Amino acid sequence: MNSVFESPNPILFGCGKSALLGEKLIALGCKKALVVFDKGVKAAGIVDKLLDNMKAAGIQTVLFDKVEADPPDYLVNEAGALGVAEKVDGIVGIGGGSSIDTAKGARVLLTNPPPINNYFVYLNVTVDDSKLKPLVVIPTTAGTGSEGSPGGIITDTEKHLKSPILCSVSLAIIDPELTLGLPPGITASTGFDAFCHSVEVITSREPNRFSEIFARESVALIAKYLPIACKDGSNIEAREAMSLAASLGGMALRGPQGGIPHDIGKFIGIRYHAPHGTAVGCLLAETMKFIAPVVPDKLRIVAESMGVAIREAATPEEVGEILCEAIRKFYKEVNMPPMRSFVASKEDMLENIDSLYKGASFTPKPLTRDDVADIVSKSYDYN
Amino acid sequence: MNSVFESPNPILFGCGKSALLGEKLIALGCKKALVVFDKGVKAAGIVDKLLDNMKAAGIQTVLFDKVEADPPDYLVNEAGALGVAEKVDGIVGIGGGSSIDTAKGARVLLTNPPPINNYFVYLNVTVDDSKLKPLVVIPTTAGTGSEGSPGGIITDTEKHLKSPILCSVSLAIIDPELTLGLPPGITASTGFDAFCHSVEVITSREPNRFSEIFARESVALIAKYLPIACKDGSNIEAREAMSLAASLGGMALRGPQGGIPHDIGKFIGIRYHAPHGTAVGCLLAETMKFIAPVVPDKLRIVAESMGVAIREAATPEEVGEILCEAIRKFYKEVNMPPMRSFVASKEDMLENIDSLYKGASFTPKPLTRDDVADIVSKSYDYN
Repeated sequence: MNSVFESPNPILFGCGKSALLGEKLIALGCKKALVVFDKGVKAAGIVDKLLDNMKAAGIQTVLFDKVEADPPDYLVNEAGALGVAEKVDGIVGIGGGSSIDTAKGARVLLTNPPPINNYFVYLNVTVDDSKLKPLVVIPTTAGTGSEGSPGGIITDTEKHLKSPILCSVSLAIIDPELTLGLPPGITASTGFDAFCHSVEVITSREPNRFSEIFARESVALIAKYLPIACKDGSNIEAREAMSLAASLGGMALRGPQGGIPHDIGKFIGIRYHAPHGTAVGCLLAETMKFIAPVVPDKLRIVAESMGVAIREAATPEEVGEILCEAIRKFYKEVNMPPMRSFVASKEDMLENIDSLYKGASFTPKPLTRDDVADIVSKSYDYN
Repeated sequence: MNSVFESPNPILFGCGKSALLGEKLIALGCKKALVVFDKGVKAAGIVDKLLDNMKAAGIQTVLFDKVEADPPDYLVNEAGALGVAEKVDGIVGIGGGSSIDTAKGARVLLTNPPPINNYFVYLNVTVDDSKLKPLVVIPTTAGTGSEGSPGGIITDTEKHLKSPILCSVSLAIIDPELTLGLPPGITASTGFDAFCHSVEVITSREPNRFSEIFARESVALIAKYLPIACKDGSNIEAREAMSLAASLGGMALRGPQGGIPHDIGKFIGIRYHAPHGTAVGCLLAETMKFIAPVVPDKLRIVAESMGVAIREAATPEEVGEILCEAIRKFYKEVNMPPMRSFVASKEDMLENIDSLYKGASFTPKPLTRDDVADIVSKSYDYN
């Protein structure tokens, strides 16, 4: 076991903490900030409130409001170019994972030559961290965990790939009050993204003692509070628990990285324009059955964290069945859309397996092409 | 609630990981290291093994073997001066909290003018972090948590004070195998130091959601594994759990800081030359009764983590009584020495209350002088 613990950035967590944005930017030496967000967050009134806060602190702002889901490279390049042209000395990212990752990409481009495509991790290019300008992010969903992770995911629109860049943030401010207005569908989808992060960490082929502690707590919080947050979006206790759980999920993704649901689901999301968390989450139940024979004890930890009892004598296969059923029940509790509601057809998936699966990262059980077909088929059939 | 999460340094955890010391020093740019330790660690054979490892990596070493408990300022100054004279470009601290904190102090003095007394936190002097040379620490006990905390505690021998300095480490390597040879008494004492850290964090007047997660896990691990590690020092599962628990306790001490057992116990330890963990730990049971009326729910979390059942209807006072009894039982399980075995007399303590208590840091219930006298008296009488 190779348990490394490393936190790339401080996290300030609590209701109302986003009111400290201006003051924290000043402390980081930022006087003119590029503010990166999408139109939905703006429409929710969150951006205006934070802009007022920054102005009150004497910070000039330059707005970039074009963020899109699965952030495309060209928008990251545009945001970076705007920041350079306007000579900003810091960045603020407001929104879900797409806004945060677009802001991370723009941060790289403020002090490194464009385009962002030059900095994908697989190219082994080193970004000089010491020159980076401060970046403060404020998540408005409870899912991505990008606010506590050392990288971002950008879509390479030429190669049709979601590819990671290395860039952490200077400070994450997590204010659960900002998630009070999230509709049930987005609450469920983003919550399932976090749920998958944490379950994938616990069942990773590279276990990490520190990550498992975060992930267990995250699973327990999501199992208890996601249904409440979906049914009653104004329940602040549930929102607070979900915001914490999502950050813990992101912090846990250090070392172990993701597993099958993310390995396949991220491509399903792109291909069928489905929300990332929905596309990823719909594969989780079947994945549990697939990996049960090799990591039954880890599945028991997931079940225990969810409050699902499994008797001592259960076989690994039975453990997989029980956890799979528990997750299917969880889908229903939060009204997760069935796969057939967003996938073109089962046939289309099966014909395109090679574009839906480019290799496994941290699954404890290696996958063949047939295994992938089996998992997506069964996930489709069940729903 | 003001929950901030911030980790000052990466932690590499696992059996055998200390074999990576040389390679990690090289990666940090260190070619000539000041190695700081005490004679006990040397006698245990741990230092020689690590020196061989560093030599094999091509690192020159300069030895400082004079570390003492409750590290006195003059030894820190001596270690720092040795490092400067020998032009080392890095430091390695091997041992318990005293070795780690002496190494932290020496790290400050490598690039800042002596003495260390100029850098006590209460003086508000800023140390230029960017100039610090790398410091790698390897704990050989499971208790202090200093390997994951942003500061060290040095004894000001003129003012007779234990006072903090700000200095984190570059990397902590936690190898539970190095604790296999710890005698039962030191295992219990250092383990109780960690136990107190975690209980004090959970019951702090400044709760922190992140710290509480670490602390709960730490309490659960210590309650289960400390008795095993004391009875059978060669049980590697127990040693691994204790090493993890101690680090989690240190990581939890961010924000909340310590409570009554540390506030008073650290001075008792100095006055009567008792091991820090013993002096601190012997106050924990009575402290629970004292704070029970104001934080009964937090005490329930401690009890639950320890596996102690408390019925729903129990009054706050009853919760305090039950937890106090559980901790007294725990003392016996690990053969903690009674207070009367190291304190001169109850009268001596009561006559010197003012030197045993210089104010509370994070207790949820303010203390009067009489409260302090009551807690130390009862702790003495019970044992």
